Amino acid sequence: MATLADIGVSAFINIVTAFAFLLAFALLRIQPINDRVYFPKWYITGDRSSPRRHRNFVAKFVNLNIKTYLTFLNWMPQAMRMTEAEIINHAGLDSAVFLRIYILGLKIFVPMTVLALLILIPVNISSGTLSFLRKELVTSDIDKLSISNVRPESIRFFFHIGLQYLFTIWTCYMLYKEYDNVALMRLHFLASQHRRAEQFTVVVRNVPYVPGHSVSDTIDHFFQTNHPNDYLCHQAVYNANKYAKLMRKRERLQNWLDYNQLKFERHPEKRPTKKTGFLGLWGGRVDSIEYYKQHIKQLDKTLTLERQKIVKDPKAILPVAFVSFNSRWGAAVCAQTQQSKNPTLWLTNWAPEPRDVYWRNLAIPFVSLSIRKLLISLTVFALVFFYMIPIAFVQSLANLEGLERVAPFLRPVIELKFIKSFLQGFLPGLALKIFLYILPTVLMIMSKIEGHIAMSTLERRASAKYYYFMLVNVFLGSIVTGTAFEQLHAFLHQSPTQIPRTIGVSIPMKATFFITYIMVDGWAGIASEILRLKPLVIFHLKNMFLVKTERDRVKAMSPGSVDFPETLPSLQLYFLLGLVYAVVTPILLPFILVFFAFAYLVYRHQIINVYNQQYESVAAFWPHVHSRIIASLLISQLLLLGLLSTKKAANSTPLLVILPILTLSFHKYCKHRFEPAFRKYPLEEAMAKDILERTTDPNLNLKAYLADAYLHPIFRSFEEEEELVEVRVDKHQTHGVAPSAGEISSPSPPHDVHHSPSPPHYVNYPSSPPQYVYHPSSPPQYVYHPSSPPRYDYRYEVEP
Amino acid sequence: MATLADIGVSAFINIVTAFAFLLAFALLRIQPINDRVYFPKWYITGDRSSPRRHRNFVAKFVNLNIKTYLTFLNWMPQAMRMTEAEIINHAGLDSAVFLRIYILGLKIFVPMTVLALLILIPVNISSGTLSFLRKELVTSDIDKLSISNVRPESIRFFFHIGLQYLFTIWTCYMLYKEYDNVALMRLHFLASQHRRAEQFTVVVRNVPYVPGHSVSDTIDHFFQTNHPNDYLCHQAVYNANKYAKLMRKRERLQNWLDYNQLKFERHPEKRPTKKTGFLGLWGGRVDSIEYYKQHIKQLDKTLTLERQKIVKDPKAILPVAFVSFNSRWGAAVCAQTQQSKNPTLWLTNWAPEPRDVYWRNLAIPFVSLSIRKLLISLTVFALVFFYMIPIAFVQSLANLEGLERVAPFLRPVIELKFIKSFLQGFLPGLALKIFLYILPTVLMIMSKIEGHIAMSTLERRASAKYYYFMLVNVFLGSIVTGTAFEQLHAFLHQSPTQIPRTIGVSIPMKATFFITYIMVDGWAGIASEILRLKPLVIFHLKNMFLVKTERDRVKAMSPGSVDFPETLPSLQLYFLLGLVYAVVTPILLPFILVFFAFAYLVYRHQIINVYNQQYESVAAFWPHVHSRIIASLLISQLLLLGLLSTKKAANSTPLLVILPILTLSFHKYCKHRFEPAFRKYPLEEAMAKDILERTTDPNLNLKAYLADAYLHPIFRSFEEEEELVEVRVDKHQTHGVAPSAGEISSPSPPHDVHHSPSPPHYVNYPSSPPQYVYHPSSPPQYVYHPSSPPRYDYRYEVEP
Repeated sequence: MATLADIGVSAFINIVTAFAFLLAFALLRIQPINDRVYFPKWYITGDRSSPRRHRNFVAKFVNLNIKTYLTFLNWMPQAMRMTEAEIINHAGLDSAVFLRIYILGLKIFVPMTVLALLILIPVNISSGTLSFLRKELVTSDIDKLSISNVRPESIRFFFHIGLQYLFTIWTCYMLYKEYDNVALMRLHFLASQHRRAEQFTVVVRNVPYVPGHSVSDTIDHFFQTNHPNDYLCHQAVYNANKYAKLMRKRERLQNWLDYNQLKFERHPEKRPTKKTGFLGLWGGRVDSIEYYKQHIKQLDKTLTLERQKIVKDPKAILPVAFVSFNSRWGAAVCAQTQQSKNPTLWLTNWAPEPRDVYWRNLAIPFVSLSIRKLLISLTVFALVFFYMIPIAFVQSLANLEGLERVAPFLRPVIELKFIKSFLQGFLPGLALKIFLYILPTVLMIMSKIEGHIAMSTLERRASAKYYYFMLVNVFLGSIVTGTAFEQLHAFLHQSPTQIPRTIGVSIPMKATFFITYIMVDGWAGIASEILRLKPLVIFHLKNMFLVKTERDRVKAMSPGSVDFPETLPSLQLYFLLGLVYAVVTPILLPFILVFFAFAYLVYRHQIINVYNQQYESVAAFWPHVHSRIIASLLISQLLLLGLLSTKKAANSTPLLVILPILTLSFHKYCKHRFEPAFRKYPLEEAMAKDILERTTDPNLNLKAYLADAYLHPIFRSFEEEEELVEVRVDKHQTHGVAPSAGEISSPSPPHDVHHSPSPPHYVNYPSSPPQYVYHPSSPPQYVYHPSSPPRYDYRYEVEP
Repeated sequence: MATLADIGVSAFINIVTAFAFLLAFALLRIQPINDRVYFPKWYITGDRSSPRRHRNFVAKFVNLNIKTYLTFLNWMPQAMRMTEAEIINHAGLDSAVFLRIYILGLKIFVPMTVLALLILIPVNISSGTLSFLRKELVTSDIDKLSISNVRPESIRFFFHIGLQYLFTIWTCYMLYKEYDNVALMRLHFLASQHRRAEQFTVVVRNVPYVPGHSVSDTIDHFFQTNHPNDYLCHQAVYNANKYAKLMRKRERLQNWLDYNQLKFERHPEKRPTKKTGFLGLWGGRVDSIEYYKQHIKQLDKTLTLERQKIVKDPKAILPVAFVSFNSRWGAAVCAQTQQSKNPTLWLTNWAPEPRDVYWRNLAIPFVSLSIRKLLISLTVFALVFFYMIPIAFVQSLANLEGLERVAPFLRPVIELKFIKSFLQGFLPGLALKIFLYILPTVLMIMSKIEGHIAMSTLERRASAKYYYFMLVNVFLGSIVTGTAFEQLHAFLHQSPTQIPRTIGVSIPMKATFFITYIMVDGWAGIASEILRLKPLVIFHLKNMFLVKTERDRVKAMSPGSVDFPETLPSLQLYFLLGLVYAVVTPILLPFILVFFAFAYLVYRHQIINVYNQQYESVAAFWPHVHSRIIASLLISQLLLLGLLSTKKAANSTPLLVILPILTLSFHKYCKHRFEPAFRKYPLEEAMAKDILERTTDPNLNLKAYLADAYLHPIFRSFEEEEELVEVRVDKHQTHGVAPSAGEISSPSPPHDVHHSPSPPHYVNYPSSPPQYVYHPSSPPQYVYHPSSPPRYDYRYEVEP
């Protein structure tokens, strides 16, 4: 058992680590050379240009202003200066709502901490059972402050039960207010949004195959019949996965070409060469620049052919389409209703916004989805329940007695007082953290296999999997295996009423472990987040070897975004820890408060200065956050019930049985009251926006606006690349190679806007005119336009 | 333990009982006097008139044709003569699909029985462990045929596991085919239906209160804004619960008046009198006819006033309305989408058909619904789990040793061989049956408190509650308390893996109990259903005292309808028994087969000749039937798993773990594939019907058609009564009493069809013109019109 001194050592180590990170951050961020690593968001919005322009040579790289070094913590007040409305404009609603979770944590736990410390600590200390028991059970000083110290059958348990009631009511009240608030923010955000393609568009999956008709004809016919007043047009989806692969290869070659050209510019006396064999290790030596130019030229030809093939081949059109309507009302109706007699055909859903679409999964045949889901849920189950074994092994090592038994030769080292404290305070948390490092990637891949078609959904699903993992392995796993690894097996052979008891009893004993976990993961971990060590190194490496133009430098920035699949579950774990220990070992609460406050500041700073969200889901993750905090409440109630039942507080325990029922009813009510705002789009809203638009912009050409909003981005990037190709490749020669490609390799993307039922013999392509009409008037609409970007008055101290 | 002889006695008793019922039925039904009890459906469809017209006096009451007595079982082939399509036309889809459940039972269990008897009985008998154990454990002969007889660790268990796999696959296959079939039948039925009010109508609940506007104005404004192309009109709902109460009182008085007038006609020499005091026991003696006439007159005045009040008072209009659209498409859209930003306002759902509406619950304030649901679910839980105690007590009595201990003086009686067999074979089943008799009423009241607004939903909810009850009390309760009452308490303290074991072990021992249960409930019970003893007695009583006119006689018929809340759960219990015992004690299966076949015949006969469905839910109960058979499959798999794990068949048991996972996946797939057909109305269908109607009937006045389709039936019945009143009461005098009632007590019902926003000051009623427009052109539309009633050629043997 860890003593107070162990915790002190651990706290010291973690605070020093956190401060080291903060100091490093403070020093690095004011160097002009790192400006793009620590302020990429401002470069993307266009509000900041390189501070390295008008300086002397040294000042270009190092900040020589001494004053700025003295105020190394002043990013904190700066992070607080933006208002929430400005953050929504600056970074989107997702980020703003994400920050609100931390504030919610503070709102819930600050009054809880004050009450728990003031009332429970005196109640627990004065009871003092454990001082008599010290001989039998090794307990720490922390345990004296916890519920373990209260004598069995004591009347004092009414304090704990009363506070559990109070805390539950308080948490529910705060959750209700917050859900209400977030739902309003979401509706307000949606209402104030400008015209966007996804407001008019529905994604239709599992379009049936009608013999003799192309997919496009089938779609046109179906929607013209069943939505005659509202249907506008649709965009077919092409299976461009092979094309995308070729594009990635081309990009790789281009990178090598750039690298070699840069090398040649710097050392014009020596033309770079390479060997043609495997990994450049053997084979004939050739001129690198010529070699890559040649390869890119060849690949461009293949690309053109592949592109032509996609556009021509009716089999490349997937039975999926983005169907657009002439009003938001029409789209809302289509997204919420069942279209066909056969409920597995013509499945309609709101289209994700274009930058949120995960194109690769659109090609998954619909029939395989349910099998994929079954397989993945079995895999997740296995992963969640068998991942426990290595963790348990490491943790049993971290138990010093266990370690000495396994490796007795280490005894002299371990017996050193400092090392002992270090091992006990730091190792268990660190071991867990390393295990958790590779997990999000695995879970994300699993979610992708499940076949969701939006990035935001993928991230939410990965986040859900990660949450189950954390709950079972970090929370339950630490509690159960920590005290006795054998209990894991015993669980399956225990009665359902016994399990909360077994866990409940161990909970107070594991408080010290979770305190160190909070310090390692919550304090030092968050401080390392702000330092951005990995992006810093990568940026400088890229800058050194690849960057030629300003555009390349922008590409090298990689601002990243809030990592929802990882941060949301860990956040929810902190809520769980706080709620479980609030009554049991209240001394844990201040550690959580520090985490919430510190993480809030760090993420606020990152969201303002660094992250660039890839999509806007309009706070679609909130229902999950809400229901998992409710789940935490339920777990805390059940565990307290189990704990008290072992304390023979038989007369007071039944009082607690009502709490879970009330909490569940509250959850059901909230689900009913608020969740539709996150899942459906009310017709009232849609109609109001339609009417407003008709009055303000009566001559809008919606068809042109929507024309290629949902074009696979790969076709778009080809256009961009083509401009570059013009510089290097003889364009006429490319055209000459593929005679019929003139139309295809022109900047017209292969999109497909049918206005009237076109002749059904789409398959006989060569003889019939191409079916896709190009609208050069329509600019790509998939960039996020916040309404009236405010000229935000934000001063950087790098420019004094 | 019951022996084979006990079962024989029980079978004998039950078969005799069943035959007695059938004989009585055969004798009673061919008497002309009972014709209306046994063939009411034909009177309702108008295909049969009284056989008592053209007879001599005796033949009016008693059937004198000897030939008809000799063929007393020939109702069975007659019941089979109608085809399914004719049954759908004759009695609706609900009844036809209800009959299919019995056929499904036969389809599932006939091959199962053959296989199980051929394979398992030899396997079980030849193993013969129990002959050695007879001393320790009292087992019956039945047990020798069951899985109990197989030696532990025997390789023979692979037969049982293999058959369980086979049975599961077979059941799933039949379920899939049947679900597919029923879904198609439903869609076909909906598509072939004539124009009906509910196709165009949506029920809107929780209309918000807008100050200064009436509910009708608010509704008009909202739907004109948000469904501008589709909205037609709406009908407000009045809180007529008090009015309905007065109407019931009036009806009671009218009955007494009729009774006295009839008495006077028969004995003109003596005018009937009554005492005015409590229950006619004391007080002054008055002329009965005058007394009731007086009271009815007074009540009519009160009724007129109350009616006027309802129509005038804006508070009597509930925040609920039936909103009609000008197309099925518009109604389908409105029913399936969310209307308002606040998801608790403007809740839209398909309107139930007018005769299915449970008017009283429309007045329940929406906010109280969630609390009601919570309270009722707690009550149901308590009822399900504490009802067990009296049953367990009775069953422990039925255990003869227990009975002798409780009442030793009965020993001489009990020891008689016949009585002993009777008690053991008959009592347990009968005890259960009596307990179950009052239950459906209680559960129906509970469902009504929950606040559902359609009779069909109420019946489905009551049926669900009854199913849980049967599962816990009849199935689990009999198994567990039968062997040891103490096990009930032990359950809560057992591990989750232990419970299937405990139950699994007891299952083979309870086979005899369930065989007697099937015979009492399934054989004799069904035979008593066809006799209709209760309706027979009530009809003759009414006929004797109240019936004056042909119309009264029709009213006295009370054909009843399929009692879904009671029959569906019992049916599902038989499926459960069959699936659980198929592998364990296959000798039980033939008893279930007899039940399915016999009940099918009986219900087919009743549906053709007797029942008159009150509503048509278009087989909306099927998803419940399906999912409960799946649940039975899962239970049977878990119990077999538990049973085998006690047989130390460790090497074979893991094979069974895959089955529940596969079964659950199958269920999920079916839910996804078929359930939307029962919950939603596809736009494709709606549009097709709309287009068809527009071509066939372009000049349809839909508004007139829908005008008072959803009028509270109480206002309708008042109109009818008014015609009667005209005969007895001086009409002008009534008008004179209430001067402003002229408009109100005219046959115009208080309906409310707003076509344009009307002036909002609806409250100042006396100064403004009445807001409800009367459409005398619209006939009441709530009668069921089957498309082209076929002249069904059905011969009754009562008329030779």
